[in-house]
Amino acid sequence: MGVAAAFGVLLGLKNFKGHDRKAFDRDVERVCRYLGSSRPTAVNLFNGLEAMRSVLKDHPASQVAELKKLLMQKAFEIYEHDRRVCRDMGEHGSRLIQNHDTAMTICNAGALATVDYGTALGVFFSAKNNGKIFRVYSCETRPLLQGARLTSWELLQAKIDVTLICDSMAATLMKQGKIDKVFTGADRIAMNGDTANKIGTYNLAVLAKYHKIPFYVVAPLSTFDTKIKSGKEIPIEERDSREITHFLKNPVAPSGVKTYNPAFDVTDHGLITGIVTERGVVYPPYLRNIRKLFQIGSSK
Amino acid sequence: MGVAAAFGVLLGLKNFKGHDRKAFDRDVERVCRYLGSSRPTAVNLFNGLEAMRSVLKDHPASQVAELKKLLMQKAFEIYEHDRRVCRDMGEHGSRLIQNHDTAMTICNAGALATVDYGTALGVFFSAKNNGKIFRVYSCETRPLLQGARLTSWELLQAKIDVTLICDSMAATLMKQGKIDKVFTGADRIAMNGDTANKIGTYNLAVLAKYHKIPFYVVAPLSTFDTKIKSGKEIPIEERDSREITHFLKNPVAPSGVKTYNPAFDVTDHGLITGIVTERGVVYPPYLRNIRKLFQIGSSK
Repeated sequence: MGVAAAFGVLLGLKNFKGHDRKAFDRDVERVCRYLGSSRPTAVNLFNGLEAMRSVLKDHPASQVAELKKLLMQKAFEIYEHDRRVCRDMGEHGSRLIQNHDTAMTICNAGALATVDYGTALGVFFSAKNNGKIFRVYSCETRPLLQGARLTSWELLQAKIDVTLICDSMAATLMKQGKIDKVFTGADRIAMNGDTANKIGTYNLAVLAKYHKIPFYVVAPLSTFDTKIKSGKEIPIEERDSREITHFLKNPVAPSGVKTYNPAFDVTDHGLITGIVTERGVVYPPYLRNIRKLFQIGSSK
Repeated sequence: MGVAAAFGVLLGLKNFKGHDRKAFDRDVERVCRYLGSSRPTAVNLFNGLEAMRSVLKDHPASQVAELKKLLMQKAFEIYEHDRRVCRDMGEHGSRLIQNHDTAMTICNAGALATVDYGTALGVFFSAKNNGKIFRVYSCETRPLLQGARLTSWELLQAKIDVTLICDSMAATLMKQGKIDKVFTGADRIAMNGDTANKIGTYNLAVLAKYHKIPFYVVAPLSTFDTKIKSGKEIPIEERDSREITHFLKNPVAPSGVKTYNPAFDVTDHGLITGIVTERGVVYPPYLRNIRKLFQIGSSK
């Protein structure tokens, strides 16, 4: 999402004419605010925008033409950095997969949602590349079915053994002893390890805890929000009720029924076995180990 | 389902001509076997068919014309009995609902799936009739969306405050402290209290346990299978993969993806706070208290 934000800024500035630096700065700010208003939950969006804004701050005396070049460089830099980070996360996560494991995932955390290898799916792609034999259950991820439409497609393309289920079937598979590990992506991680991700992730985490199944979050450092202490500070986007009441414009619920449609939920750090980052897997105690990751001193 | 089975037998025999008692008995058996093959999980189906078969056994010397009348009487008897039972369950369950409670339910356990008041929804209809103020979250119940299509419609008709959610959103509502109680129906209950019900029920039960929310099953005595000791003996129907991969003939998943589509799951008795029956609420220890309900001696 950070990469999309960076290239989004370039697209938003495409029609800027002239050489007035002040007008250009205002336009960058306008585009950044517009893109920033699209999703409140994921932090990578804001990180990407912040990186683009920093180009202006770092070059107060530069001309508009030069700034345009510098912004494009920065966008490609973010992109290349994300590619490397995804590969590194994949490698670290791949070590958590044993031969003949069965893993479970929710939503899409692969190439279609991120860059290159992706986060949670990058773990599977790396494991596959490393010759491991394993299978994956993909939760369909209501209401928008990213697990059905995107994840199962990506895994099929990579020739990984994938089985699609409805979200509510995860518990019964876990009870049958069929799931060894759960891997999910993240939209924002607080400094105590609390993790916001697609709605249904917290559901899976509780089920995994109950059935004593390891539950891993896979996310780059850019997904950590060093400004917030816990998941309580993460705003949760609520979306249109038609995502639940309609399907391809066909109603599937009585007209006028109320809905509750949060797009994300927050998984308490106590439910998370480990967080796979580009620098390795972070384990509890998260408060200490995440601060270490960012080399923040432990004195308050 | 028992009532549908009983009337199904009548419909299946509609074209039987002649007075040959042996041929009639064979035809009854043929129809019963056919109807019995439709769903392996729910026990009421088999109970209904058994009740119809018993008419033949109890009247070995009766003529075909008389038997037809007796079978019709029996079907109406089952129907009237179920109506009374649903009202009684509703009354007992209604006492569990406090003013300003928020309840949650899954699938459809109302008039559209059962008789008259239904089971889990009968609790809400009774509570409403008794003047209680409460609200209900209805889980949409993938893949067939009975919660969206049927339950939320029935509750709206009864002017009960209902909010529709996707199944995976239940956990986050529970975490927010918004759910006071869960009520579900049942397709078959073993003598130790293990309960088979629509897929997703076990999911909810685990979540309720984790969040310390009471979880009630609402079912008549006819849903108990006195022949089985635990949920392990309940066969689980698996259904067509197109229920997950398609929506109104539109594909929502890549062609060729494998699916797992169990129609039911089994909730361990340890997760169930109480079972609401027409004779009152049964609490743990279930092994003893269910046997008491059926007045089976406690000596093995």
